[in-house]
Amino acid sequence: MPIEQDYRPGLEGVIASETSLSFLDVDAEEIVIRGYDLIELATKVSYLDIVGLLLDGKLPNEAERESLEKDLKAEYDIPEAVISILKALPKDTHAMDALRTGISALAGFDKELEDRSREANRRKAIRLLAKVPAIVANSYHIKMGKSPIEPRKDLSYSANFLYMITGRVPSESEAKAFDQSLMVYSEHEMPNSTFAARVIASTQSDLYGALTGSVASLKGTLHGGANEAVMKMLLEAGDQSQIEPLIMKKLKNKERIMGFGHRVYMKKMDPRAQLMKQALLKLADEKGRHDLYEMCEIGEDVMRREKGLYPNLDYYAAPVYYLLDIPIDLYTPVFLAARTVGISAHVIEQHENNRLFRPRIRYMGPRNLHPRRS
Amino acid sequence: MPIEQDYRPGLEGVIASETSLSFLDVDAEEIVIRGYDLIELATKVSYLDIVGLLLDGKLPNEAERESLEKDLKAEYDIPEAVISILKALPKDTHAMDALRTGISALAGFDKELEDRSREANRRKAIRLLAKVPAIVANSYHIKMGKSPIEPRKDLSYSANFLYMITGRVPSESEAKAFDQSLMVYSEHEMPNSTFAARVIASTQSDLYGALTGSVASLKGTLHGGANEAVMKMLLEAGDQSQIEPLIMKKLKNKERIMGFGHRVYMKKMDPRAQLMKQALLKLADEKGRHDLYEMCEIGEDVMRREKGLYPNLDYYAAPVYYLLDIPIDLYTPVFLAARTVGISAHVIEQHENNRLFRPRIRYMGPRNLHPRRS
Ligand SMILES: CC(C)(COP(=O)(O)OP(=O)(O)OC[C@H]1O[C@@H](n2cnc3c(N)ncnc32)[C@H](O)[C@@H]1OP(=O)(O)O)[C@@H](O)C(=O)NCCC(=O)NCCS
Ligand SMILES: CC(C)(COP(=O)(O)OP(=O)(O)OC[C@H]1O[C@@H](n2cnc3c(N)ncnc32)[C@H](O)[C@@H]1OP(=O)(O)O)[C@@H](O)C(=O)NCCC(=O)NCCS
Repeated sequence: MPIEQDYRPGLEGVIASETSLSFLDVDAEEIVIRGYDLIELATKVSYLDIVGLLLDGKLPNEAERESLEKDLKAEYDIPEAVISILKALPKDTHAMDALRTGISALAGFDKELEDRSREANRRKAIRLLAKVPAIVANSYHIKMGKSPIEPRKDLSYSANFLYMITGRVPSESEAKAFDQSLMVYSEHEMPNSTFAARVIASTQSDLYGALTGSVASLKGTLHGGANEAVMKMLLEAGDQSQIEPLIMKKLKNKERIMGFGHRVYMKKMDPRAQLMKQALLKLADEKGRHDLYEMCEIGEDVMRREKGLYPNLDYYAAPVYYLLDIPIDLYTPVFLAARTVGISAHVIEQHENNRLFRPRIRYMGPRNLHPRRS
Repeated sequence: MPIEQDYRPGLEGVIASETSLSFLDVDAEEIVIRGYDLIELATKVSYLDIVGLLLDGKLPNEAERESLEKDLKAEYDIPEAVISILKALPKDTHAMDALRTGISALAGFDKELEDRSREANRRKAIRLLAKVPAIVANSYHIKMGKSPIEPRKDLSYSANFLYMITGRVPSESEAKAFDQSLMVYSEHEMPNSTFAARVIASTQSDLYGALTGSVASLKGTLHGGANEAVMKMLLEAGDQSQIEPLIMKKLKNKERIMGFGHRVYMKKMDPRAQLMKQALLKLADEKGRHDLYEMCEIGEDVMRREKGLYPNLDYYAAPVYYLLDIPIDLYTPVFLAARTVGISAHVIEQHENNRLFRPRIRYMGPRNLHPRRS
């Protein structure tokens, strides 16, 4: 009797799945990742530990982490054909569209594509985690008319990712800030992109296809696309004196201010944003860009005062990426790369205990029409 | 308070959207498409009429239908680069994965990609409807080492689609059966692939991305992939005497029999299957393949007797496509091509009255763990 049931636009508050992966405990203000507080993890472990935790259910020990790193590095290379596909795309293709096409094409190269077992899905997740950074970085270099950059196995996973983007080996503190950003982006319960992946996987479709759907979802400005929009707004403002008038003008025009608000937190500050704010302060001091930090703080204050809205992760991740010399077009692709592990873990869970997603609708159209022609 | 709420696996019976596009009226056994009975439409109008109905809200008159056909034919060509991308894929790439990559790549060629207005979305839908058949057909020819086939504008939309697949101009009755199959596949309320598209579009992501997600969804054997699985089962049985033992063996092994059951109908016969059964009878008689029709009927009887399950559309669409000389690998891609209009109409509706899909979960994992390393 679907018609009787109450309808909640955007499925707000509706339970879509059971999961052991993560949970936004709004009352405790905690992002729970397999029992751990994400913020505590992000200050104490590294991205690869979270990869192990999400894929295998427990934090890896030293030996397990080394073996994970080895497995990843062994899968760094991407097929020449995928490079030539990226080259065939028009030069003004959106970076997320290039990434989506690259991941979609990669599917055909995975010999275990159609195996839905946990073990095969885990191996595919490792391959994707190894190759997605190379697609992200090289789609950009190709677009800029430069040659693809080869991965450097002497660097850590995240330092190599940042190196492949900028072409420059990052300093220790840069690599740390980037690794921390990957951690806070890694998994976040059931955002739209993860939901899209589980919906797709529930037809018994494969991990690559599910991830392709996530890329498409994350491109939207109400979701991952927000980090790029934040940076464009900060650059449009230009300096500390101009951010307040710019936000006030946008609010007057009834525009949404990107980087604020969240379906689940709404009335509270995203703890991931808090962590990225600290990372921004450190980087800004090191790079003599305290003005950027101040501008962000002013924006934060204005939005709290005017709308009672708090920054979300994207608001503070954007200026961090800016100071790390990541091109703005790649902010959302980097988000996707970091989230690949969370999405993969959700697909593994979906395939292990599956039921097809197939909801219903409330019909608002006419009835009892008949075609005249025959 | 999501934890309080009852959890319905697969969102069974949950209302996900309001829509004026279609509705499965289970009690009346009617598939309502903008007020019309789909089965009545499929016997009285043609696929292009349904395209007009879904995109513009009313059945086109003669002049409107001609102009729609002209608009479609003007957009038949696909970029050379997309052909070369299809050529770069490994030869054993799944046809749905090739289609997904082709549609994903096409996005970068659409100058109106980022315009979310109804008018721009409609124009993009027309482009997709014009080009998807060419991607479907030519990805197959390329895989087989043959040259791509050029569209023939002197044929009707659906006759050209079938021609591009088989390389042979279809007879009138073949073209009619194919057109009818496109009609019954065109739109069907909120199946997984349409839901995936609306979820993705709700981030304000674009139509091409949403459709990419639909392709990924439809590939799964619990959804579009079923039509191919049906044909493989019929061919495995080989003749009328072997279908009953084969199904009995599969049921004994607790396998699902593809082409039976449906989340929403379950206890009733899918009226689309009924229509395709009639089309099959006609084609089978014309082509001297009454044996195939009989085999299907025996399978139908066995499943009703053993499981109380009725055929769904895929069960009878599969042998129809077989008699139309469509390669089995293309059954699901053809389904997607036919459904492109329904999905596009849903994305248009989503963008016009949007709220981000962002449900919640029930957390089943541990709590209060702390990392040891620091
Ligand atoms: C994330 C987001 C989509 C969640 O929204 P939601 O739960 O669907 O909430 P709604 O869209 O229903 O918004 C509720 C109200 O808050 C307002 N609001 C929400 N976010 C806002 C923002 N960033 N700027 C201005 N107003 C905002 C809405 O306009 C609405 O007001 P109204 O009721 O007067 O119309 C929304 O906060 C948003 O669009 N934020 C900006 C994009 C962004 O940063 N996304 C990244 C999220 S990690
Ligand atoms: C379409 C489908 C996914 C809908 O299923 P659903 O609403 O999720 O129903 P469930 O998967 O919960 O199945 C309910 C029961 O019917 C059985 N069942 C459903 N379809 C079946 C089939 N095709 N063959 C054998 N048993 C089937 C299930 O095994 C289950 O039995 P159980 O309760 O004893 O375990 C399902 O009918 C199916 O898998 N069909 C085959 C694939 C297919 O033809 N898909 C195309 C749909 S257009």
